[in-house]
Amino acid sequence: MSESISPVILCGGSGTRLWPRSRIAKPKPFLPLVGNETLFGQALARTSDDTAFTSAMVVTGKGHLDHVDSETREADVSIIVEPSARNTAAAIALAALRLPADQVMLVCPSDHHIADTKAFIDAARRGAELAREGRLVAFGIRATAPETGFGYIKRGDPMGDGAYEIESFVEKPDRDRAEAFVEDGGYDWNGGIFAFTAGYYLKELATYRPDIADAVAKAVAAGHENQNRFEPDAELFAAVPSESIDYAVMEKTRLAAVVPVDMGWSDIGNWHVVREMRPGDADGNRVMGRAELVDCRNVLVESDGPRVSVIGLEDVCIVVDGDEVLVTTVDGAQKVGKLAGAQNQSGAA
Amino acid sequence: MSESISPVILCGGSGTRLWPRSRIAKPKPFLPLVGNETLFGQALARTSDDTAFTSAMVVTGKGHLDHVDSETREADVSIIVEPSARNTAAAIALAALRLPADQVMLVCPSDHHIADTKAFIDAARRGAELAREGRLVAFGIRATAPETGFGYIKRGDPMGDGAYEIESFVEKPDRDRAEAFVEDGGYDWNGGIFAFTAGYYLKELATYRPDIADAVAKAVAAGHENQNRFEPDAELFAAVPSESIDYAVMEKTRLAAVVPVDMGWSDIGNWHVVREMRPGDADGNRVMGRAELVDCRNVLVESDGPRVSVIGLEDVCIVVDGDEVLVTTVDGAQKVGKLAGAQNQSGAA
Repeated sequence: MSESISPVILCGGSGTRLWPRSRIAKPKPFLPLVGNETLFGQALARTSDDTAFTSAMVVTGKGHLDHVDSETREADVSIIVEPSARNTAAAIALAALRLPADQVMLVCPSDHHIADTKAFIDAARRGAELAREGRLVAFGIRATAPETGFGYIKRGDPMGDGAYEIESFVEKPDRDRAEAFVEDGGYDWNGGIFAFTAGYYLKELATYRPDIADAVAKAVAAGHENQNRFEPDAELFAAVPSESIDYAVMEKTRLAAVVPVDMGWSDIGNWHVVREMRPGDADGNRVMGRAELVDCRNVLVESDGPRVSVIGLEDVCIVVDGDEVLVTTVDGAQKVGKLAGAQNQSGAA
Repeated sequence: MSESISPVILCGGSGTRLWPRSRIAKPKPFLPLVGNETLFGQALARTSDDTAFTSAMVVTGKGHLDHVDSETREADVSIIVEPSARNTAAAIALAALRLPADQVMLVCPSDHHIADTKAFIDAARRGAELAREGRLVAFGIRATAPETGFGYIKRGDPMGDGAYEIESFVEKPDRDRAEAFVEDGGYDWNGGIFAFTAGYYLKELATYRPDIADAVAKAVAAGHENQNRFEPDAELFAAVPSESIDYAVMEKTRLAAVVPVDMGWSDIGNWHVVREMRPGDADGNRVMGRAELVDCRNVLVESDGPRVSVIGLEDVCIVVDGDEVLVTTVDGAQKVGKLAGAQNQSGAA
């Protein structure tokens, strides 16, 4: 048991940046954005190699349970249902409290795409070794562009076998700093993937954010289990301070390490990225759904029903979903999350 | 009676160039493209001045009767129902056969917009004078641009009071010829508006296309009337040769005259033109329906329901209608009629 890795798949999201396809009620993890499988399905598949992994633990919100159930019907997973969203420090603590202290956890967001599963598993194994030695391991994504939407990790001294001490975490930088990081070469993106044992995570959380550690422990103690589902007490969990693992633990602990990994990672952060990740036809157009394109180049069309007819456009994304139609330049795609439609959604939290 | 003018409003269309808003089942005349009234409603209103006009006669297809009825519920109109579409020579003959021989008819398409009603009525009165003298009068629209989609009329000798003999009709020219026409200044667009007495029209039709004249007369003789509706015999009308009034009569008769008129005419031939005719906001955007526009300039949005969110576009028309979404550059708008969606419509003929 202690030799294998327990995947903890975090599954939720606000559904704004890939709106209107992604909605609060059906956010990014549950969409087949690249290929036919959803990102959540891909995360499950990626951690299904039983020579490396135990069965997965899924941490998700009440509102997403139907989606999770429909994708895990035949899989041997346990599900932790969050009565409310209290950010990643609490979500990961829920999982840690349900595992033996010496069990290595691999925390995996389910809203990104990883092209190279072998590189992912190799890195996970290396991270697990370090976790067993008492380290809290972040995985660094090679910073290939000066992205201002990600946090960065500055590598420190090498620890051997591709791992490094962490010199510092850097919050989302401005453009100039991001460009300097890429040029420097000593920085990786923080992709939100972590490895540690349940015990060390809880210990460090108790050290730096005892309020969160205590509140989650109380909610778990008063929680209830039903078959493969566990739900902490709703009222007690609602009282847990909301904080990210980065702020609460990783930026503070002296046990942090980083394993940089080049595995074709993408956060698929907007429709521009979706377009880039899908194969285009001879004119670079990408179509999902019914469409006719005339004199178009590098146009993305995604429709859940209506036919989309397009004439004369280039570098534009068109998304039709229910009663919403989005038309944006690829450059404008980063503003989608600010649209009234994306901001003022009703639906499950 | 013979002093006043009988408006004959032709009402149909194929519904392709302004697709998907305009459809075979609800073509251009029945859409509120400029202002709140439909083009058909505007055509009725334009000819409602009873110091100049009798009540109107509407010639329309079976499939459009509901639209016509809903717009004429309180108007004193008579309706001629075409069992099938046999082009304008036949449609106008139907109306002429239902009128006294000395009655001046003013043939009015209902798929264009006229901004200056007074100029229209003044021209109609001048045309009616000539009609009573036995002329077949076309109205010339000032050619303000080298349009290749219209027929042109070359003015001949002046006849006084703003009327001219017609030197020749020119079918849709290529770009070079159209530019030469505009530069020459002696050419007008043929807007499909005509004035003549019923008797002279039928006489000239019988002279140049006796086959059409005879076939329509037979269909009318075997037709049936019901309140304000008249329907020619369907089988006999289907046998009428299909030809335009231009080819069948106007280009051949020696009685033709032209009254050029500057009345703010537009055929609203594509979405680019619709955009031009609607007032824009400070950024030149025109929105009908629910929409949010960010960083957009001169964008037209028309939606029959779904919200349309647009980022970063300029000079683009977006039309949402039922199960069809159209996104086109203004330059591409002229290709809309060739789209599969526009071409392969099912619906009333």
